[in-house]
Amino acid sequence: MDLKDKIRSIEDYPQKGVIFRDITTLLKDAEGLKDAVDAITASLADVSFDLVLSPESRGFIFGMPVAYNMGKGFVPVRKAGKLPAETISKEYELEYGTATIEIHKDAIKPGQKVVIVDDLMATGGTAKAIMEMVEEMGAEVVASAFLIELDFLNGRKALPDCRVEAVIHYE
Amino acid sequence: MDLKDKIRSIEDYPQKGVIFRDITTLLKDAEGLKDAVDAITASLADVSFDLVLSPESRGFIFGMPVAYNMGKGFVPVRKAGKLPAETISKEYELEYGTATIEIHKDAIKPGQKVVIVDDLMATGGTAKAIMEMVEEMGAEVVASAFLIELDFLNGRKALPDCRVEAVIHYE
Repeated sequence: MDLKDKIRSIEDYPQKGVIFRDITTLLKDAEGLKDAVDAITASLADVSFDLVLSPESRGFIFGMPVAYNMGKGFVPVRKAGKLPAETISKEYELEYGTATIEIHKDAIKPGQKVVIVDDLMATGGTAKAIMEMVEEMGAEVVASAFLIELDFLNGRKALPDCRVEAVIHYE
Repeated sequence: MDLKDKIRSIEDYPQKGVIFRDITTLLKDAEGLKDAVDAITASLADVSFDLVLSPESRGFIFGMPVAYNMGKGFVPVRKAGKLPAETISKEYELEYGTATIEIHKDAIKPGQKVVIVDDLMATGGTAKAIMEMVEEMGAEVVASAFLIELDFLNGRKALPDCRVEAVIHYE
């Protein structure tokens, strides 16, 4: 089965000229869901790490089953104001405007190795912001893994020192 | 191991007099994460169903690994304006104000049996709104499963015709 066949492409969404890759058609298919989670898990099989980090909210969709499969803990990276305890936060550039994301200060210990899991890598801006926060906490991002990579946006350039895995590519 | 010991309680959050039950301390603990997912999965072991539905965004945290474990598809219930294809939507009452949630119209087929999975049941308002949407689509919610139930809010009263499972209770 080609996982790509289960992803729906929506033209001119969210704006003219953009093709949105919609994973909900893959997720509602039990076999597609299993194969997608297994493929991300397999891409990290030889990586030694302690924690999975994923950004709210689509990142949670793949980050949690990968953490479960690999026997690791999970740390949610949330939008500003959602985490109840003390956080570190980072503002970063989006295509239009900025976003602020937060991680609980006690979520990661210095020296821990973490992996970022998300549904899709576009420009790599979110992953880069997470990586900077992890480094500020004295820990290290040893790999990042995505279901989908939009190759034409060159997101890997934003993560030059990080192993990047992606199951599905759009050129 | 008592899962409850891994949940952090934060007093007077988000407002005075409320004790917030913070699952992030459980999630970062690999054993706690595994035991929580396994306990929700086990609570649904004898339920025959087709799809897991979970509301954005903490619902995704447990809904996805439960769907993966049980070989089912997953349907995200999202806040208004996040889903790219045609949706049905429902506005419902919160303690202060209202919220609107959406489901893709083609996500559920008439006659399908679905299970709602979420991290926490408070008043049951979100689960009730999802149940009404599922019924409008000609499908049926056969069970709901939560990691945490706040018993004193009587959320089960909002779901009188639905099996409700919860792993951890606060009285």
